[in-house]
Amino acid sequence: MTRTINEEASSEKAEARRMMSGLEYMRKIMTGELPPSGMVQLLGLKLVEVSEGHAVFTVQPDERHYNGLGIAHGGLAAALLDSALGCAINAMMPAGKVFTTLEMKINYVRPITRERGELRCEANMIHVGGRVATAEGRITDEDGKLYAHGTATCMLFRP
Amino acid sequence: MTRTINEEASSEKAEARRMMSGLEYMRKIMTGELPPSGMVQLLGLKLVEVSEGHAVFTVQPDERHYNGLGIAHGGLAAALLDSALGCAINAMMPAGKVFTTLEMKINYVRPITRERGELRCEANMIHVGGRVATAEGRITDEDGKLYAHGTATCMLFRP
Amino acid sequence: MTRTINEEASSEKAEARRMMSGLEYMRKIMTGELPPSGMVQLLGLKLVEVSEGHAVFTVQPDERHYNGLGIAHGGLAAALLDSALGCAINAMMPAGKVFTTLEMKINYVRPITRERGELRCEANMIHVGGRVATAEGRITDEDGKLYAHGTATCMLFRP
Amino acid sequence: MTRTINEEASSEKAEARRMMSGLEYMRKIMTGELPPSGMVQLLGLKLVEVSEGHAVFTVQPDERHYNGLGIAHGGLAAALLDSALGCAINAMMPAGKVFTTLEMKINYVRPITRERGELRCEANMIHVGGRVATAEGRITDEDGKLYAHGTATCMLFRP
Repeated sequence: MTRTINEEASSEKAEARRMMSGLEYMRKIMTGELPPSGMVQLLGLKLVEVSEGHAVFTVQPDERHYNGLGIAHGGLAAALLDSALGCAINAMMPAGKVFTTLEMKINYVRPITRERGELRCEANMIHVGGRVATAEGRITDEDGKLYAHGTATCMLFRP
Repeated sequence: MTRTINEEASSEKAEARRMMSGLEYMRKIMTGELPPSGMVQLLGLKLVEVSEGHAVFTVQPDERHYNGLGIAHGGLAAALLDSALGCAINAMMPAGKVFTTLEMKINYVRPITRERGELRCEANMIHVGGRVATAEGRITDEDGKLYAHGTATCMLFRP
Repeated sequence: MTRTINEEASSEKAEARRMMSGLEYMRKIMTGELPPSGMVQLLGLKLVEVSEGHAVFTVQPDERHYNGLGIAHGGLAAALLDSALGCAINAMMPAGKVFTTLEMKINYVRPITRERGELRCEANMIHVGGRVATAEGRITDEDGKLYAHGTATCMLFRP
Repeated sequence: MTRTINEEASSEKAEARRMMSGLEYMRKIMTGELPPSGMVQLLGLKLVEVSEGHAVFTVQPDERHYNGLGIAHGGLAAALLDSALGCAINAMMPAGKVFTTLEMKINYVRPITRERGELRCEANMIHVGGRVATAEGRITDEDGKLYAHGTATCMLFRP
């Protein structure tokens, strides 16, 4: 049952997305008019800034995000980075144009633990052409210390 | 309170890890003797195979893993790949030697939805030297169809 | 003058390329019917095998390829890998369809010097879809020892 | 014979390198006191700026750098980027400390032809720790138009 309701919600959200530009859509999520996606909720990520070619997500790491070594699993930084990079590129898409991420690369430069406090991932467009866009992002703490950085390549198209 | 218990558990697990080889540790997780990490539980990943330089994780994607476009968030495949790559490399580490992932790169070649059924990520060592190891992994469905693939570079050291 | 002749040659080659499949074209280079490209000649690379989704280039490293540290410059392995990956993907392209490399990633696992003897880079397709293809390659010596490995993402289109 | 002379030169250069900091060494190359490496000469690359964690190389692309499609081979941008990234990191190394590039990733965003004029690759450090450093670089023309960008991960050690 829950599954059916989720499916409808999921389909409605996908439809709503097609009717507006990427930027409008992301802003509605930021203000709470539209619910964040399942994964963003599951991991506790939060979209806090978005403009054309730019986005910021935050997360407070905790034990739910840990691997067996007592630090955050690499998947947390990867999901945070993917969210911010995708959102920065999405915010360049006019209504009716969508993107798909072809590849992402992430460098881990410091271990992430909950003691680091809230982390912030800022993503910015590097290049946007007719068919391809690239963006970069960096994950830092409140003191500006760097934890991870990376880039993504996206393909742009009209479905 | 919960936090304190988790912390203890986390510290015990880290200690336990140091006393055995990577392979012993991963096997105890696979058999259920040791609990999987927080992130593995949160995302519903499952370690199903591990041997020297080789590991397989599975996941059944569902709406909890979705992004706003009605497909799995890139973070799911990234976390699954990171788990399998890390575990394949971990399974080469003798007791007292650990690794840290320096970077990971993932290519997304098909969208992941829950209709795909259970996905499997198989990772294999490419190179292991004294200080650096690399591995590759592929995410496929039960028919062997490819969804994502990637590589990681790890640094090996004695803490 | 030389420049003008080169330009004509370059334009003729580009035209010739469009009239045949990628595989026909690569085979004509391998047999010497068509000249290899400028860069392949400059670096002394040699195409020695090509079939659908598969290619092998070789090179004998020497001091012309060195960096200031007395080993081969990273650009040599990168150019060798790019040649093999591109050729493996090119060999999948029907006449009239071309590809462009969006990104390449290379891992260096051992230093390359001329004492290693002839190196061989074997590339194989990982995925080919309607619009995107990925391939991987490995650089080894005659004993099969690994020096570098990497992947590329290409976009496929009709000009 | 030539080979023997080159070898001596190569060994002298490697020795000279060990006696000075990375920055001193790169500056002597820039001013012409020390000869550039074989590969830099072969491809016609030119070091034009270097300071701690920062370097700029230039190149005038021509047909010698071309692939079979009438544009510069991916290896040219890769070699240019690798030179600039390596030099930016080298310029952080005190005497007696060296680095090795573990991996490099490059995104190609526009085709390079000789009509573009002189290209410039500017590289800057992203992160430098005790054992690992990362840097990023961008290849642009005189108008600031972007052709390629990428990152590298290096391991730092005392031989």
